[in-house]
Amino acid sequence: MTEAPENIGIVYLVGAGPGDPGLITVRGADLLALADAVVYDYLSNPELLSRAPRAEAIYVGKKAASHSMTQQQINDLLIAQARLGRRVVRLKGGDPFVFGRGGEECEALEAAGVPFEVVPGITAAIAAPAYAGIPVTHREFNSSFTFITGHEKEEEYKESAGRARIWIGRCWRSCRAWRFTWGSSRCRAFAPS
Amino acid sequence: MTEAPENIGIVYLVGAGPGDPGLITVRGADLLALADAVVYDYLSNPELLSRAPRAEAIYVGKKAASHSMTQQQINDLLIAQARLGRRVVRLKGGDPFVFGRGGEECEALEAAGVPFEVVPGITAAIAAPAYAGIPVTHREFNSSFTFITGHEKEEEYKESAGRARIWIGRCWRSCRAWRFTWGSSRCRAFAPS
Repeated sequence: MTEAPENIGIVYLVGAGPGDPGLITVRGADLLALADAVVYDYLSNPELLSRAPRAEAIYVGKKAASHSMTQQQINDLLIAQARLGRRVVRLKGGDPFVFGRGGEECEALEAAGVPFEVVPGITAAIAAPAYAGIPVTHREFNSSFTFITGHEKEEEYKESAGRARIWIGRCWRSCRAWRFTWGSSRCRAFAPS
Repeated sequence: MTEAPENIGIVYLVGAGPGDPGLITVRGADLLALADAVVYDYLSNPELLSRAPRAEAIYVGKKAASHSMTQQQINDLLIAQARLGRRVVRLKGGDPFVFGRGGEECEALEAAGVPFEVVPGITAAIAAPAYAGIPVTHREFNSSFTFITGHEKEEEYKESAGRARIWIGRCWRSCRAWRFTWGSSRCRAFAPS
């Protein structure tokens, strides 16, 4: 049976923050408390699930190239859960729109006619250096900063190291402060050669 | 009377987020609830003060070049409040370390021997486009992004427009996505000429 449009639920793409469960937003925590389902991945702190006592927790296990579900399957899952009339929280590590593929999930939800809302999160790209005492900006030293991911699309992994090296070289000339964002699996590819 | 070191308080530099009071972190909200003093400025949403019922609210009123207190006076105020043994929340719009002079406040507190902690906040540079439906990254289009401020140090305002134009030209060649961060007062300086 196809759900009638008036029974459709909603998907909240919520940034979980950089790991410390206290760094989720108040809005994100409130939505977790009311959620019927939480779709979460490797990057989110599992402790956050305790904030969602009513919810079915669905792990979709993304970790670098070892995806337990493809992005298409995750998109389909979000749409299916919303069509059950549920309030779905898609909990994403950091910020949904900073190297998080939140944009693709929004596109899929929009195409399927599923209402959604994005709740920003603290990105580790800013918080991790902050916790180490490093401000990403300081008016004595820089008036801009650049984030660069070490992860390209999976199908481009095989050549991304070389491309990224060229790219960093370009940035070096124009940016006085930047922050690299990648997992440990990418560090070797970027080590000086 | 000089306060004994054991009576010294603590300063929390808390990111207030981009304006929506629900976008402060849970940790930030918890600290406001326990604060003895909240030192806040123009950028923070005043509604957040209702989360700090015990606190003395101290407005330091920074807005572009119209500062009601200098940065030095703000630093001195934070130190003096902590030396009264208080739990002080320095509430800063967005993130304390993204174009927020949080680094300078940390340096002053460190030099004065005042304990402090930084609690990151959602920066408007990411959240504002997110609320407009624009992800700052999308793996089909970009693997990096750059934040550029339109505000330099006050003493350099008179020449900053020209310098920033040159700078943006450099970025244009190497960055596929960037986000400009400035107040409306700076827009004219950057308008096409």
